Amino acid sequence: MKFIAKILDIASRGVLLNRADARSIGVLDGDRVQIINPKNRTAVAAFVDTTSTIARQGTIGIYQKTNFRLNIEDGAEVDVREAERPASLDFIKKKMDGTKLSKEETFAVVKDIVSDDISPAELTAFITATYINSLDMDEIEHLTRAMVQTGDQITFASRPIVDKHSIGGVPGNKITLLVVPMIAASGLKIPKTSSRAITGAGGTADLMEVLAFVEFSANEVQEMTDKVGAAIVWGGATNIAPADDKIIIQEYPFKIDAWGQMLASVMAKKFAVGANLVVIDIPVGQHTKVPNLQEGRKLARDFIELGERLDMKVECALTYGDIPVGHSIGPKLEVIEALRVLEGATEPNSFIQKSVSLAGIALEMSGKAPRGSGAAVAQDLLTKGKALQKFLQIIESQGGDPKIKSSDIVPGEHQFVVNAPASGYVIEMNNKSLISLARTAGAPQDRGAGIQLHAKKGKLVKTGDPLFTLFAERSWRLQKAIEEGRRLMPVVVEGMLLDRVTEI
Amino acid sequence: MKFIAKILDIASRGVLLNRADARSIGVLDGDRVQIINPKNRTAVAAFVDTTSTIARQGTIGIYQKTNFRLNIEDGAEVDVREAERPASLDFIKKKMDGTKLSKEETFAVVKDIVSDDISPAELTAFITATYINSLDMDEIEHLTRAMVQTGDQITFASRPIVDKHSIGGVPGNKITLLVVPMIAASGLKIPKTSSRAITGAGGTADLMEVLAFVEFSANEVQEMTDKVGAAIVWGGATNIAPADDKIIIQEYPFKIDAWGQMLASVMAKKFAVGANLVVIDIPVGQHTKVPNLQEGRKLARDFIELGERLDMKVECALTYGDIPVGHSIGPKLEVIEALRVLEGATEPNSFIQKSVSLAGIALEMSGKAPRGSGAAVAQDLLTKGKALQKFLQIIESQGGDPKIKSSDIVPGEHQFVVNAPASGYVIEMNNKSLISLARTAGAPQDRGAGIQLHAKKGKLVKTGDPLFTLFAERSWRLQKAIEEGRRLMPVVVEGMLLDRVTEI
Repeated sequence: MKFIAKILDIASRGVLLNRADARSIGVLDGDRVQIINPKNRTAVAAFVDTTSTIARQGTIGIYQKTNFRLNIEDGAEVDVREAERPASLDFIKKKMDGTKLSKEETFAVVKDIVSDDISPAELTAFITATYINSLDMDEIEHLTRAMVQTGDQITFASRPIVDKHSIGGVPGNKITLLVVPMIAASGLKIPKTSSRAITGAGGTADLMEVLAFVEFSANEVQEMTDKVGAAIVWGGATNIAPADDKIIIQEYPFKIDAWGQMLASVMAKKFAVGANLVVIDIPVGQHTKVPNLQEGRKLARDFIELGERLDMKVECALTYGDIPVGHSIGPKLEVIEALRVLEGATEPNSFIQKSVSLAGIALEMSGKAPRGSGAAVAQDLLTKGKALQKFLQIIESQGGDPKIKSSDIVPGEHQFVVNAPASGYVIEMNNKSLISLARTAGAPQDRGAGIQLHAKKGKLVKTGDPLFTLFAERSWRLQKAIEEGRRLMPVVVEGMLLDRVTEI
Repeated sequence: MKFIAKILDIASRGVLLNRADARSIGVLDGDRVQIINPKNRTAVAAFVDTTSTIARQGTIGIYQKTNFRLNIEDGAEVDVREAERPASLDFIKKKMDGTKLSKEETFAVVKDIVSDDISPAELTAFITATYINSLDMDEIEHLTRAMVQTGDQITFASRPIVDKHSIGGVPGNKITLLVVPMIAASGLKIPKTSSRAITGAGGTADLMEVLAFVEFSANEVQEMTDKVGAAIVWGGATNIAPADDKIIIQEYPFKIDAWGQMLASVMAKKFAVGANLVVIDIPVGQHTKVPNLQEGRKLARDFIELGERLDMKVECALTYGDIPVGHSIGPKLEVIEALRVLEGATEPNSFIQKSVSLAGIALEMSGKAPRGSGAAVAQDLLTKGKALQKFLQIIESQGGDPKIKSSDIVPGEHQFVVNAPASGYVIEMNNKSLISLARTAGAPQDRGAGIQLHAKKGKLVKTGDPLFTLFAERSWRLQKAIEEGRRLMPVVVEGMLLDRVTEI
């Protein structure tokens, strides 16, 4: 049936049909229709909502995400028909029933995820099924390749191309802001796509956005990398492995991190940017995604095996993930800390050592440094200011201010210092509580919100010494964070009263 | 934050926030907010969509399903805040991880399903998790009780209250239209809630709607049953076990029928209407939900055990489900067939025998007939016209015409007869293909669409004899069904050419 398109300013995906028209096509609320733009022959699937007034008979309201691929103009004619049931639903059902999916079946599912031909609920069924009935290494390889092939890819004229990834879960893990400049300063190329925080207090893309633009196409990432040796961008804007973002959004409510999907997700992005040397940082610790060294080694072996299947050299670093990296949590606070180190600060040690070690592995893998001396070469690039110089070039190439200094960046004006209620050693820092607190204060959306730690685990403090400072851009958020801080007590001093129960 | 409500004529659930307001509350597209109607203190959760124009700053667009419970007037003030993450998401995650859910956890999940506090995707995760990690009998009992408690319930002044259920999957299974009048004609009470077809060609509610209204509240069902002994209504309108409908909608894309959910779903509806004597029809056959007798017996035992836990007496009848019941498929055609039998027709035998047997079981369970003679008593009620008289009373009490005759009902005017292409025995009838064909012709939405079978399995036909007639209300639907019929060949005659491959 022919309809006149009415572009609706509603951000999600979907179409709005008049009830009478829905009946004529033979569809109900929530049914799948196919919309065809006769001008460019693009066909997209969308799910039907109905109305009696907002769309008159003969017109169809089209929401923004649905029109993104369809690209129809307001008032133009579109063809609408009942959509076929996608075959990928049968493959998802197969996975529910415990059957291994073939390469072609996996590809069909991923293609439908990317094109929005399956609904968020249907995608969630796929995620749940693959979470419970884990993917084997063949399926992980197929998923990785399907994620790569359904998105944009970068091909550089020469190799090696380096890449780096940190498995999430550790607050304050701003090391990319040091590792990428060090690697690029050695003459290597590293086109780094990063994520925004979903459950965290600041993803690398959120941090980098304090300094420069982060939304670029795959082509622009390639050009910038060719020019200055590196880019630090938001992967979500590149259309590189776009299936991954859609999967992550649906995983969010359940805090799922399915092993196979994590492997595929990480390696697809590395493969798609043309990387052939990859360093993976696996933080190990009670509150991270990898609880102990044994699990960490298993994950590392799987990354290496998947790399071999994809012709990529992978090395993994198991790192200490029990407490935050450095002293800052939240976009601006972390950027300040990173810039200070690039400018010459020799603290915090945990942050510098971790960054130097990881950059060193890449230098050794590529032959830029002999085995055993990668960290020293990386440290030298940092100490001599080469890494800072390279970082400022990256900032400039991404449209930021190449003269920026750490002192130019101002964190949230609303602040509250939490002092030690007793004297003793800091015996406990809870990553999850720290992240939760930083988010309550407004991070990552409010770039200036977060936490500055004054004492880390093992430090001896006296009553009244500052433990940490909360930062917020809005005073009501600070108040909320203060209340939550009292409840969560993310930093515990030995001998400190955890609770007080009075007589009833 | 306070907002002015703007009721939007969009049938689904959700709220539409201005982008600037969404940022102020600190929510993104797809995030969960809580809306509070200050007048009645009702709070509902909804998922955010964003716009720059349709909702101005300070106003919030509210879709119809979300306003159903909220009940806010256009222009009134509402309070909107970021919603807490429902605890039931943790319980769903637990089930994904293979852990058994407690009574309280199951109740929390079902409560959130009913109140729309979890999204369709989150509900799908629950369904997928319980499909893969099957529920044990404790969990099934908890699920059943939770489904009952989160909806309306009927309490009759006296017992027994009879109920009947057919596990779906067999086309043309219109037996409720005979079974319920026979049982009620014996003096028993049977408040029958039925479903509309989701994957089928006509649910009992779709059939009954040809003759009378089917949308009533639980209270009205009770009153009608007290008055005439029975009601045949659409369960979806009653708010009896409302979680079930929401679950079924999400199962639809995957054609899931999880064992535990099916048990809970059936028994919750019986329990909620106050039934204590229940007959369950389990069609067994290749293309039904129960492939063989062994599985059928297992299912029967589970129904009986669940019944015992709920203080209900359950008997199950394993019935022949390989081919359609009777000769008609589709609402009007099936109603015509049922009325003809009530009016005295002695064919089709398969339909009459099945109905009489099932009614007979209920008569024996209740003591209205001695063991072994239930079917004969039921047959007598049919033959003597008592069942017809009772059915017309039921129709009248539901607002239909008590003088209706089978000849008053006119099926779709567009018809096409499919003839036998060869002489031989009918050796195969494919239920799934027959249902698909009836749906393509327009059933169940187009009440007059469907299939009339002229020859059933085992019958000897000659070339040119009619096999079946397709009925449709719209000619394009008939054309589509004719094409599909050529491809599916739902009725196969021995010796008939299945395909012809020519030289390439």
